[in-house]
Amino acid sequence: MQFIDFDKTDAYRLLTEHTLNKFDFRVKLDAERVGRCRIPMAAGLTYSWAAKAVDDKTLKLLQALSDEQELIAKYRALLSGEVMNTGENRRVLHHLLRGGHGQPVIENKRDIGEFYRGELDRLCEFASSVHSGKYKGSTGKPFTTVIQIGIGGSDLGPRALYLALENWAAAEGKKKLTAKFISNVDPDDASAVIASCELEQSLFILVSKSGTTQETLANELFVRDKLITAGLDASKHMIAVTSETSPLAHNTNYLDSFYIDDYVGGRYSSSSAVGGCVLSLAFGPEVFREFLAGAAEADALALQPDINKNAALLDALIGVWERNFQKYPCTAVLPYSQALSRFPAHLQQLDMESNGKRVNRNGVPLSYSTGPVVFGESGTNGQHSFYQLLHQGTDIIPLQFIGFSESQRGDDVTVDGSVSQTKLAANLAAQIAAFAKGQDNADLNKEFHGGRPSSLIFGKRLTPQVLGSLLAHYENKVMFQGFVWNINSFDQEGVQLGKVLTKKVLAGSPADSALEAYSKIFGI
Amino acid sequence: MQFIDFDKTDAYRLLTEHTLNKFDFRVKLDAERVGRCRIPMAAGLTYSWAAKAVDDKTLKLLQALSDEQELIAKYRALLSGEVMNTGENRRVLHHLLRGGHGQPVIENKRDIGEFYRGELDRLCEFASSVHSGKYKGSTGKPFTTVIQIGIGGSDLGPRALYLALENWAAAEGKKKLTAKFISNVDPDDASAVIASCELEQSLFILVSKSGTTQETLANELFVRDKLITAGLDASKHMIAVTSETSPLAHNTNYLDSFYIDDYVGGRYSSSSAVGGCVLSLAFGPEVFREFLAGAAEADALALQPDINKNAALLDALIGVWERNFQKYPCTAVLPYSQALSRFPAHLQQLDMESNGKRVNRNGVPLSYSTGPVVFGESGTNGQHSFYQLLHQGTDIIPLQFIGFSESQRGDDVTVDGSVSQTKLAANLAAQIAAFAKGQDNADLNKEFHGGRPSSLIFGKRLTPQVLGSLLAHYENKVMFQGFVWNINSFDQEGVQLGKVLTKKVLAGSPADSALEAYSKIFGI
Repeated sequence: MQFIDFDKTDAYRLLTEHTLNKFDFRVKLDAERVGRCRIPMAAGLTYSWAAKAVDDKTLKLLQALSDEQELIAKYRALLSGEVMNTGENRRVLHHLLRGGHGQPVIENKRDIGEFYRGELDRLCEFASSVHSGKYKGSTGKPFTTVIQIGIGGSDLGPRALYLALENWAAAEGKKKLTAKFISNVDPDDASAVIASCELEQSLFILVSKSGTTQETLANELFVRDKLITAGLDASKHMIAVTSETSPLAHNTNYLDSFYIDDYVGGRYSSSSAVGGCVLSLAFGPEVFREFLAGAAEADALALQPDINKNAALLDALIGVWERNFQKYPCTAVLPYSQALSRFPAHLQQLDMESNGKRVNRNGVPLSYSTGPVVFGESGTNGQHSFYQLLHQGTDIIPLQFIGFSESQRGDDVTVDGSVSQTKLAANLAAQIAAFAKGQDNADLNKEFHGGRPSSLIFGKRLTPQVLGSLLAHYENKVMFQGFVWNINSFDQEGVQLGKVLTKKVLAGSPADSALEAYSKIFGI
Repeated sequence: MQFIDFDKTDAYRLLTEHTLNKFDFRVKLDAERVGRCRIPMAAGLTYSWAAKAVDDKTLKLLQALSDEQELIAKYRALLSGEVMNTGENRRVLHHLLRGGHGQPVIENKRDIGEFYRGELDRLCEFASSVHSGKYKGSTGKPFTTVIQIGIGGSDLGPRALYLALENWAAAEGKKKLTAKFISNVDPDDASAVIASCELEQSLFILVSKSGTTQETLANELFVRDKLITAGLDASKHMIAVTSETSPLAHNTNYLDSFYIDDYVGGRYSSSSAVGGCVLSLAFGPEVFREFLAGAAEADALALQPDINKNAALLDALIGVWERNFQKYPCTAVLPYSQALSRFPAHLQQLDMESNGKRVNRNGVPLSYSTGPVVFGESGTNGQHSFYQLLHQGTDIIPLQFIGFSESQRGDDVTVDGSVSQTKLAANLAAQIAAFAKGQDNADLNKEFHGGRPSSLIFGKRLTPQVLGSLLAHYENKVMFQGFVWNINSFDQEGVQLGKVLTKKVLAGSPADSALEAYSKIFGI
């Protein structure tokens, strides 16, 4: 297995040459192409790339790129526990949280998968004990609210997933507890969330892998003060999710603790206790297990070397095609599902924190572009917001649509001969066609140039299994892109400097006169 | 007054030449520069541009650009009621909602400002009548919840402003009603919001200027069905905000109606009844009037021709410098304030819908870039998400920070010798320095290149007046940029094609075989 910078590959040269050969998908996009250019995904989803500027030749070159950069071999190596997080000298094992490769990963005679499965079993049992009433608040009342305290990967993924399933669970009679989240060090965040809760009936989940996250520790103390002031036993109202080596581990301040390790990065931790505790408490452990099963199914499909059978791989490669050869610096994620309203915010972290790198996995500067800017909002809301620029702006932004034929709650109304869910889907179909094909008009202010590429992931209904499959699809996509670019998608050294300077400011010793001047602005 | 394409100006040529002269603000950024490079804004805010790649020569050229493109004269013309929305042949009068130019705008002998002020007085009186109990739900119970039904400008701005003031109002004892919002045509949105409300005590605000917005009308029927099913008199639970010519106007289905006109675009309508009803009902009419006063103060400052005294103008011009000469395609809005969590989503619409245009105001195609992609999340949350790419990615993204020295709720905790609000501000100061100055490291994976430009808007505390000033700042900034680019920032023809194709799908006659194929995917 070789690790080569992307611009040193034959594929890079051939793809560069191929950019001269313009494929105009505006005129080629017809029913035949829509029917042909799609790949089955896990949990019944389908990936459609018909409205991408990709022809047979492009596909062939992308397959060659995948083969030359050994993307599947690298994925297999990662699954087997090789140290793929080179900078931090760590394995990358989030797939193992949901099954992995099927082969054990052993370290110092310890089976890491067994550890992960053990923690999963423990958290499921804990959630059941809360639901059965075995665990209650310190005044004897049952818990009705669970509040996650965490930031970044301990917040965005779990929050997005909770929102994604809240209405499904309500419709299926599976909603057990309401979840809330405290993340920001802005004290208004914690203060407002706490003011909205019955503390007597609230269970807090403190999530920090290192046990040293500034925001999370400040918010823990904030909450603890409120619990004590309310006359409650704080240790009966808080559990911890952390690593076994953190200062929070094995601590009687918590009702119970669940462990993760350094092989699960924050932005990949939704499949661990970081997402598992809050989702199991909110919806029941079986719902979280269904979610994991959907993710595992997607992980297995991602092993397929043929890009025509591997949606995560093809999605990744088309993204590279658009980023490095069509030179598009951004991409928008547009789920036509209110349940996925915060899914773009999670993908923004997943993608930009993983692949926003300017050196290769060995620390050598790169001369090609890596991860794009990712943004998005749910449709149809976005149509009435930033779609103007997407349709008629001076730049082209590749789009990633997601949609379902059924709603989650099944509660709908017929207006003008159609239900809202049909209107939602009709809008989605119309947007894909409008972006791709455009429309001529003698008044150029009303002309749509078209040629704006999009992909579509579609399914029947957003269930826990479908959600797991969707999450894993994007995780694997981002991983494959990192392999193409020969970067380390699993560290985040770019967040360190800000932390260091913040500490200096708070210690009263800012590093330089500008920092001191900015600090004084805020009276520090 | 002349309207010239940007690339035909002398300023464009001179700025292009000036790009060769690299100003390295990394080494120039010191306390003196931080102290000098700032401009007072309205409501006590300050705009700081010290960490921008702008030197004295750049400033001089940007001033010359402002003068040559007659930006202040065009703003004055807009205030005076000239037809600045050329495509739709409309005046642009959102400033008049909060005072305008001081001069009346007369049309067919009608004083439009008088009309706006009359509607403002009426909605304030209505809100007071709800608060006093004069208006109650149809079963005689007082209203406790107000629910806005609208999308795009009828949703994003009002929602962002409500969230921005919710905690302030709670702390000040001014919160009167809880507000919720229904926007998406996804039926799960309306269904979930309604399931969370006591319908008996809920007052709905239906907002659609045209009275024909598909999503809003579907959601109105959805709500009306629920009200009727609950045995309530729907006409006692709903008010309308619309134009006088809309099918919704003067309709006994509504408890009352408040009017706007075609001279206030959706994304500029937060200062009208579109934002005014929900904010006045939630927090009291005097809070909304304070918000308008802050905006009016900002509007007045924006008349200043000297860019050293006009923050909106300078912010606009620096944005143009970054977009057209430094070639940065995106910009991130990063408020260090949880209250502003949805403010970036509003600015995303404001900016991208206004300036995402590829033809000039006469419909002639442009050969230079216009509006950038705008995205953002509140800090410190974003630090744990996409900041990795901002610090160490291959592209440079100009940043727009916002911060305050005091929290809204004043409820805080001391951890490790500082309160959370101080930590929040310390993080903000540290980020500006880290982005600007970077840090060397022999391990290039831990090196920060720096040279990543940012601006900062800072103030003491986020109050209604400050919020109004902030909103108007961005509205005026976007307007000035549109004048530079010689585009029409006030229409949105790019949203039309999707609407037309959606209607065709729903009518069973998709325009072409691809659209039909996509529709079939969703069973339409």
